[in-house]
Amino acid sequence: MPSPAAGEVLIEVLAVGVCGSDIHYYEHGRIGDLVVRSPLVLGHEASGRVVALGDGVRSLAVGDRVALEPGVPCGACRECRSGRYNLCPDVRFFATPPIDGTFAEFVTLPADFAHRVPDSLSDVEAALIEPLSVGLWSNQKADVGPGDTVLVTGAGPIGLLALQVAKARGAASVVVTDVVDTRLDVASELGADDVVNVRTSEANLADLAPSVLIECSGVPSSVAAGLRALRPAGRAVLVGMSADPDVSIPVATLQNRELTLTGTFRYANVYPAAIGMARQRTVNLARLGTHEFGLDDVEAALTASAADPSVIKPIVRPGR
Amino acid sequence: MPSPAAGEVLIEVLAVGVCGSDIHYYEHGRIGDLVVRSPLVLGHEASGRVVALGDGVRSLAVGDRVALEPGVPCGACRECRSGRYNLCPDVRFFATPPIDGTFAEFVTLPADFAHRVPDSLSDVEAALIEPLSVGLWSNQKADVGPGDTVLVTGAGPIGLLALQVAKARGAASVVVTDVVDTRLDVASELGADDVVNVRTSEANLADLAPSVLIECSGVPSSVAAGLRALRPAGRAVLVGMSADPDVSIPVATLQNRELTLTGTFRYANVYPAAIGMARQRTVNLARLGTHEFGLDDVEAALTASAADPSVIKPIVRPGR
Amino acid sequence: MPSPAAGEVLIEVLAVGVCGSDIHYYEHGRIGDLVVRSPLVLGHEASGRVVALGDGVRSLAVGDRVALEPGVPCGACRECRSGRYNLCPDVRFFATPPIDGTFAEFVTLPADFAHRVPDSLSDVEAALIEPLSVGLWSNQKADVGPGDTVLVTGAGPIGLLALQVAKARGAASVVVTDVVDTRLDVASELGADDVVNVRTSEANLADLAPSVLIECSGVPSSVAAGLRALRPAGRAVLVGMSADPDVSIPVATLQNRELTLTGTFRYANVYPAAIGMARQRTVNLARLGTHEFGLDDVEAALTASAADPSVIKPIVRPGR
Amino acid sequence: MPSPAAGEVLIEVLAVGVCGSDIHYYEHGRIGDLVVRSPLVLGHEASGRVVALGDGVRSLAVGDRVALEPGVPCGACRECRSGRYNLCPDVRFFATPPIDGTFAEFVTLPADFAHRVPDSLSDVEAALIEPLSVGLWSNQKADVGPGDTVLVTGAGPIGLLALQVAKARGAASVVVTDVVDTRLDVASELGADDVVNVRTSEANLADLAPSVLIECSGVPSSVAAGLRALRPAGRAVLVGMSADPDVSIPVATLQNRELTLTGTFRYANVYPAAIGMARQRTVNLARLGTHEFGLDDVEAALTASAADPSVIKPIVRPGR
Repeated sequence: MPSPAAGEVLIEVLAVGVCGSDIHYYEHGRIGDLVVRSPLVLGHEASGRVVALGDGVRSLAVGDRVALEPGVPCGACRECRSGRYNLCPDVRFFATPPIDGTFAEFVTLPADFAHRVPDSLSDVEAALIEPLSVGLWSNQKADVGPGDTVLVTGAGPIGLLALQVAKARGAASVVVTDVVDTRLDVASELGADDVVNVRTSEANLADLAPSVLIECSGVPSSVAAGLRALRPAGRAVLVGMSADPDVSIPVATLQNRELTLTGTFRYANVYPAAIGMARQRTVNLARLGTHEFGLDDVEAALTASAADPSVIKPIVRPGR
Repeated sequence: MPSPAAGEVLIEVLAVGVCGSDIHYYEHGRIGDLVVRSPLVLGHEASGRVVALGDGVRSLAVGDRVALEPGVPCGACRECRSGRYNLCPDVRFFATPPIDGTFAEFVTLPADFAHRVPDSLSDVEAALIEPLSVGLWSNQKADVGPGDTVLVTGAGPIGLLALQVAKARGAASVVVTDVVDTRLDVASELGADDVVNVRTSEANLADLAPSVLIECSGVPSSVAAGLRALRPAGRAVLVGMSADPDVSIPVATLQNRELTLTGTFRYANVYPAAIGMARQRTVNLARLGTHEFGLDDVEAALTASAADPSVIKPIVRPGR
Repeated sequence: MPSPAAGEVLIEVLAVGVCGSDIHYYEHGRIGDLVVRSPLVLGHEASGRVVALGDGVRSLAVGDRVALEPGVPCGACRECRSGRYNLCPDVRFFATPPIDGTFAEFVTLPADFAHRVPDSLSDVEAALIEPLSVGLWSNQKADVGPGDTVLVTGAGPIGLLALQVAKARGAASVVVTDVVDTRLDVASELGADDVVNVRTSEANLADLAPSVLIECSGVPSSVAAGLRALRPAGRAVLVGMSADPDVSIPVATLQNRELTLTGTFRYANVYPAAIGMARQRTVNLARLGTHEFGLDDVEAALTASAADPSVIKPIVRPGR
Repeated sequence: MPSPAAGEVLIEVLAVGVCGSDIHYYEHGRIGDLVVRSPLVLGHEASGRVVALGDGVRSLAVGDRVALEPGVPCGACRECRSGRYNLCPDVRFFATPPIDGTFAEFVTLPADFAHRVPDSLSDVEAALIEPLSVGLWSNQKADVGPGDTVLVTGAGPIGLLALQVAKARGAASVVVTDVVDTRLDVASELGADDVVNVRTSEANLADLAPSVLIECSGVPSSVAAGLRALRPAGRAVLVGMSADPDVSIPVATLQNRELTLTGTFRYANVYPAAIGMARQRTVNLARLGTHEFGLDDVEAALTASAADPSVIKPIVRPGR
């Protein structure tokens, strides 16, 4: 049982989503330069209940249910002072080595990163504020709004959330691509105006002339095809991580159409907005939490997606 | 019967909304420096059907129903080249002296400013793309999105549209103020999270700490109170026109909180997005067109609002 | 002799500029809601030499000369996390009651807010990084660059710095106004393309059609005239503080031309850039420090400007 | 002798810079999809003197010297109306097939695209407003200002201009790379804070931690190395055209640091600002025009750079 330091709260973990990065660490022991060198507790998409307060905490009370923002930056470096605390070189992030994660009964967290959620949100929904923040951040980077035609490539959990946020921001239409029809069916169910199976369809994405690309698959051919489809002055955001750190992109197209390309690394300052969207029900989080597991079954949770295509996001419930 | 020049279309007018500026010209003969010096046809919120094409028009066909973008800029000046064609000093705008407006059976317009509308939109809805564009433009200027708490002051037609666009862009909450309860009831019906009658309520707007003010009343005290309510780094957009060209504003608050204040003059490049929103039904235009009049009853249309508080926007239907 | 806490440094003060706010506190005992209720050491434009390090300080060494960034924010609130730490409600700022200032031999400061300066900068120049930051921040808010015609109203120290920064950012031309010819002479000397004595000249500022207004006088008529002069889509930044917290502004003009108006409150994240400009000599700081005083003559320093128009900025040298 | 249509002027060509694209068309007969199918007059960096006015031209007079903006857009499409006229699909651009260029004694141009220059600019300087516009546009896209450390890769004419504009916008430092020392010497002469020969130097560009990359070489390894060097939140602009339309870029770095990448295609709305910079002498254009040729020696002008490394930009003088 950890003890909360000054400014921290002790949190009983209620629900934790399994993220692709958890699965990747479990299978490969590393993500790029981040290597697991000693035993590591995984999990970082968490909700919980405050059970004790460290010294000086006044923003929360024992009993409050919270969504846990998993990355705690230094607060003092250039990136932090500039409002880009997600880029803080000294950030401590749950389940990024060597920081243990939230597949646990109890964790501590600075109170400023434990965001109270309304009673109307379930524990699972509160946990999924984390991936929703990723989807929201990507939309914010792309400045999606009415008048935009958005292409979301990849219908995994992040793609499904990016889709929903784009609709909630008023996008004129959102088209989702993937290579698995069952995933595309969920995209349609969650509001996609159109879906395209890029393995089986003859559709030409360039006919859509999207103004925005939110790339959530990490597949190099998808990055290139998405960029080629964009209309002049289109904006592209790379969210999905490629297996290869280098990807060939159509720079001549990028130049001729003055496209803008950026990528996302986690998020900053979006938890309150994400909680607001969940509260308003402009996004459906519950649909993503398809399968639940106890803390003793974390391994089953980490392997569930590979085994069963109907699994969108496995949820670990420590208290069950 | 006018004849379309090269690049123009001849349009049979189907529906025209009555705007506050039409009423103002009718009652006062001027708006600021714009003076009606000879008989002027009013009306600029119009939909119609294309009945003839000028030379070289290929983007439209006879029979197409269109929303008429009422201001045609020069296309060559600094403002036009910079994408701010609404600020073109040589713009020709329906019902702005000395250009006749759309309370008429037929008008001509450059084809580029006649925007085709889908069959699912009624003639009245197509006409109201014009005020919707005003509401959309103000939201765009304020960059409203999830995470924003928006204060809309004034629940006339523009305020009701600004409200709906803010919701459609994902605003966390929108509060609308007015001094007439029946208008506030419509705001609630159209999605306001809260409404405040600033004449009768004791509520303190500063308690809302809105991040955005969209001022649609033109009342000086409302401008000042709205600005004082904003949180640090809040954005304010003045849409409503004040009777007095000068208004006292709390500059010390604007400085201490680094607020940003701007105003809108019509709109640019938003008709396609506005039509998209109407098509998606993320805004309700039909509710605004409360009362209809024939072309012979334009005077009754112009005076209807003053006589009956249930009139939100009178609609003139030339063909009826 | 104060003692540096963990993360702080102890600084021997070398030079301190006298700011208008120091003079205002001295004469009136308050600025707006900020009231001096007990004896207060004034002074916040300071340079110094590090003489001792608190625990854990590694970014500085004893002997380093530094420019002191005078406001230390909490680092954790919404404004701080968003990169707007100047708007932190809990900021502790030198010489803002009840925090003592830098008219002192020694002060302590968190190391992150003590910015090392190159040897090529004099102690006075290092002190004047503070007002330079105000001038830089205002230019950054106005996004001044090549193609801009800038109107700077008020040729006091801040106006003279805003002018120089505008030139250093490549502004096409900068015109400075004031009511005192000797000040305007200094503006010319420091690079103004033109100067206008608005008391004696018949020149019409609107003929300039500036794209940017940086208002440094705080005089209401100057705010209004500056806004009226701006071309369409012009940007205005209010830096000078008005005696009255409310000022009448031409809102009809602001709307018709879609002007953008904001104000500045101190600055954030600009000290490194300001030091870079001083090092490159793209701004002349030395010219502003016209008169020097010892620590025993602070009262003389505070009253020097009023007595002698050739005083631009009095400098207090504690070590002399 | 062409005849000016309504709105056009007839211009006697005074000086024309040779651009890399001229050389590329001359050598290869195509640039990407743009193929020379019939004899084509090259040249698009031109200055001239107005010798006749078409109907309705009032902004210019016979005798005016002008810089010719070589691309004339349609003025009506979505890109034009949005202020991005450089992306107009129907733009007519000098020396882009099938539009003849300015290696000619006389050409016609719409008056709005003939920009008057002051007497203080030479004919050659006026011609070089065109490549200066490219350098200015790239800096504008990168939003270069004080506080930025800029890496310019490639010290050809565009790199030398991007460098100078960055300095004129107040960049804290600009480092230029190339593989030819004589070019780097010119970069130093024109204000580079440092130069690096990436073929012979062991310097690690990442040690610079630039905030901005302006890539002017078109060399894929330079694109990748430049991106890898950028600090978090850095901005990269690709100006140089790669031989291969696809280039491998470090997307993992782009994501982890949330870099922003865009490209430029010509420029829009910058001629007045470029002329202003030339007038103010904040950029040195004359140094680029190293060698002059008559209209009969265009072939020699097109091959001069390859033969002689001291040639920066050959100039064709039709009247000599």
